[in-house]
Amino acid sequence: MTEVGRDFTQFDKSCMAEALRLAAMGLFTTSPNPNVGCVIASANGAVVGRGYHAKAGTEHAEVHALREAGEQAAGATAYVTLEPCSHFGRTPPCADALIEAGIARVVVAMQDPYHKVAGRGIEKLRAAGIEVAVGLFAAQAAALNKGFICRATTGRPYVRVKLAQSLDGRTALSNGQSKWITSTEARHDVQFGRAQCSALLTGAGTVMADDPLLNVRLALDEYQSQAHLRRALANEALYQEVAATEPLSLPSTLAQTALSEVRQPARVVVDNRCEIHDLLQLWQVDAPIWLASPHHCEDGLNSELPAHGEYLWVETGADDSRIDLPQLIELLGQRDVNDLWVEAGASLAGALLSHDLIDELIVYTAPRLMGPDATGLIDMPMLSAMDQVPQFEFSEVERVGTDLKLTVRITR
Amino acid sequence: MTEVGRDFTQFDKSCMAEALRLAAMGLFTTSPNPNVGCVIASANGAVVGRGYHAKAGTEHAEVHALREAGEQAAGATAYVTLEPCSHFGRTPPCADALIEAGIARVVVAMQDPYHKVAGRGIEKLRAAGIEVAVGLFAAQAAALNKGFICRATTGRPYVRVKLAQSLDGRTALSNGQSKWITSTEARHDVQFGRAQCSALLTGAGTVMADDPLLNVRLALDEYQSQAHLRRALANEALYQEVAATEPLSLPSTLAQTALSEVRQPARVVVDNRCEIHDLLQLWQVDAPIWLASPHHCEDGLNSELPAHGEYLWVETGADDSRIDLPQLIELLGQRDVNDLWVEAGASLAGALLSHDLIDELIVYTAPRLMGPDATGLIDMPMLSAMDQVPQFEFSEVERVGTDLKLTVRITR
Repeated sequence: MTEVGRDFTQFDKSCMAEALRLAAMGLFTTSPNPNVGCVIASANGAVVGRGYHAKAGTEHAEVHALREAGEQAAGATAYVTLEPCSHFGRTPPCADALIEAGIARVVVAMQDPYHKVAGRGIEKLRAAGIEVAVGLFAAQAAALNKGFICRATTGRPYVRVKLAQSLDGRTALSNGQSKWITSTEARHDVQFGRAQCSALLTGAGTVMADDPLLNVRLALDEYQSQAHLRRALANEALYQEVAATEPLSLPSTLAQTALSEVRQPARVVVDNRCEIHDLLQLWQVDAPIWLASPHHCEDGLNSELPAHGEYLWVETGADDSRIDLPQLIELLGQRDVNDLWVEAGASLAGALLSHDLIDELIVYTAPRLMGPDATGLIDMPMLSAMDQVPQFEFSEVERVGTDLKLTVRITR
Repeated sequence: MTEVGRDFTQFDKSCMAEALRLAAMGLFTTSPNPNVGCVIASANGAVVGRGYHAKAGTEHAEVHALREAGEQAAGATAYVTLEPCSHFGRTPPCADALIEAGIARVVVAMQDPYHKVAGRGIEKLRAAGIEVAVGLFAAQAAALNKGFICRATTGRPYVRVKLAQSLDGRTALSNGQSKWITSTEARHDVQFGRAQCSALLTGAGTVMADDPLLNVRLALDEYQSQAHLRRALANEALYQEVAATEPLSLPSTLAQTALSEVRQPARVVVDNRCEIHDLLQLWQVDAPIWLASPHHCEDGLNSELPAHGEYLWVETGADDSRIDLPQLIELLGQRDVNDLWVEAGASLAGALLSHDLIDELIVYTAPRLMGPDATGLIDMPMLSAMDQVPQFEFSEVERVGTDLKLTVRITR
C-alpha cells in the first residue's frame, strides 16, 4: 500500500470514502445529530463492518459497524467520519465501544466541534493505547455536517435561502403569477434541499398567497443512488477527491435497514400579524408548525392551534412591529435546528440578508426573461454608490434540467 | 491508422484539428471573409504545409499551405476547414490551386454556404479526379464561422448582445452608477467578444451617458495561446472533441506572419435624434462610425461628420419616430457585417429582442445584489401570464474571474 500524504494509504482513503458514502445515507434523518459513517477493516485489508447513524436516539455509526464486525474487530482499523463520542448521551460513548472491541487503530476524518466531545473522544482512544490519525477527507466530512458544525460552534443554524428567478432576476409577474419559472427538474431538486433541513422557514405572506404544503416529497430510493454523496457534499471539487479513490469491492446492500421514509421538517412561519389560520394546507402535513409571532399579538388570539402547531413568541425589532429575526434564528438554534432552509418572498429574504443571517443563497435561474415590471429577487435598501453593492461568491454552479443552480456563499 | 467513423482516421482528425487551430488564428481579422485553416500532409504522414486566411483580399489558407508544401503537395492530402472556393473573387479559386499542385485527396470540414461556392468547389475537385471527403469536425468549423454562415444563408449578421448584471438582474444603480458590476477578468473577456465582431452596435443614450471609446483593447499574444481555439469555438463540448485528438509534432511558429494588430470594428450607433456630436471620445479611434438615424433628422443637421463618420439613413418603424431595427440589421448585412456585437442599454436590447433580431445573449453575471431600485436588464412589455414568458436556452456556462459568463441562445 502506497503512503499518501499525512500517512494515509490508498486503502485508508478507499475505506474513508466508503464511510463518507455511509454517512450521507443519514442526510435526511439524523438531525439534530450529525451525519456519521463508519467502516471497519481487518489487518489483512478486508472490510468487516459498516454502519451509519440514521436517527437521533438510535445507535451510532460505530456501534452498527462493530456489530457487523463481531470478533473480527479485534486488531482492526476503524474509519469514522467524525470523532467518536466520549460522553453518555442517549446512547453510551462510542469511544468506549471501540476500545472494548479491541480496535487497534482509528482513522478520524475530523474532530467533533460539539463541546461535550471536542477532542475528548480522541484522547480517550489514545489513552487506551489505540493509534489515532485525524484529518483524512476532513473537508468532505465537514461538508456533510455544515449545519451541525455551525450550531455546535455558533449556537445558530446554517441558513440556506432558496430562490427561483428568471435570468433577469425576477420571481413573479406584476400580477403575482410565478408558477412555474423553473423546470420540473429544478423544482424536484428543491425537494432534496428541503429533505436535508431540520426546519423550513417561510413568511405568512407566502403561505397566505400560495397555500403551500411545504412538505418533503422525495422517494426513498433517490438517496440510495450512486449520485447521492455527490449531491450531499454539494461541492464538486470535494466530491471528485472522493471519487478518485479506488473502489472497495463491497456488497451493495447494508445490514442496517434504511429508514422507510424521509423526515418532514418543522415548518416555521414568520407570522407578524398572527394571520395563519387552521384552514391552510400547511396543517395537513403531520410535522410541527411553529408560528414565529410578536408578543403583542398574544392577547388578540381567539382560537387554539391544531395539536402540531405552536407559537414561538419573539421580541419585536427595535424599529418596527415585526419580530426580531436574529432572535428567531437564536431560538431555532436552541430548538436543535442545525440546517434552516428558507423559502420566502423578497421581503423576508431581504430582511434576513440585512441582518447578516444568511450563509448561502441557492438561486435556481431559468433561461427566461420576465421584464422590468416583474417582481425583483430580494428586497434591499436603495444604494447610491457601487462600493455599497455587496460582493459574494459563486461557490457552486450546476445545470439542473434547463436551469442553473447557483450556490452563492454569503461571506461574513 | 484506425478508421474512425465516416472513414476518417486518427491522423485525419489530428490534421483537421490543427487546421481548426490555424483557422482560429484569423478570428479577429478575416471579416467579412470566413475563418479557414489548411494543413497539407504527405502520403507518408508528414505535415508539409500549413496556412490560414488572415484578411479579406489576401491569400486564402490553401495558398499559404501549398506554398509551404511546394513540390511535396503532389500526391498529398489537404485538410481544409471550409470547402475550397471555386470562383474568382479578389484571389483566384483555391480549388484550381489544389488541382494544379497535384493534391490527391481533400478532406473538407464543411461545405461553403456562400451561394457562389455551395458545393461547386467540391464538384470541381472531384471532376479533376481528386478524392474528397466532407464532414470531419463540421460543427467546429461552423462554430468558427457563425456570422459568415448566418449572413451567407439569411443576408443578415449573427447578433450577439452583451450584458453585465448583478445576480438579481440589475445593470446600474438608480442614480445611474454601474462601474463596475463585474470583475476585471469579465471586462477583459468582453474585449475578446468585441475583437471578433465585424461591427459593434450601441445606442446614442449609452454613448452620451458614458462617452466610451468602444474600441478593441486586446494584446496580440492573447490569441496565439493554446486556449485560443477553446475560446474561439465558445462551446466546451465541441472543443473537447478537438482536444481529444492526438497532437501532431509541429514547430510552434508559422511561416505565415501573424498580423501586427487586431482590427477595430465599425461602431454603429442608433442615433434616433442625431445627437451624436464630434466631441465624443468615439471619434478618437480610427475606425468607421455609422450613425443609424431616421430620414426625418436629415434636414436639421448643421455640421459635417469627421471623415470616418457616416450617416446610415433608416426608415422609421410603423408606430414611432425611431428607426426600424430590422431594416438596420438588413443594411448591416448588406455592408458585409457577419458578426454584430451589441453593447447597449435595456431599451435598445429590449427593442432588438422584441423584433426577434438577437441570436445570443452573453450575460456576465456577478455574485452581487443591487436591489429592486436598480435598473433592470432588458426592457420588455408587461406580461400577464407565465406562458408569455419567453424560454431560451443556456448554451454555455463559464466562470470568468469571480463572475459567470452565461451564453443564452435565442431560439427562433
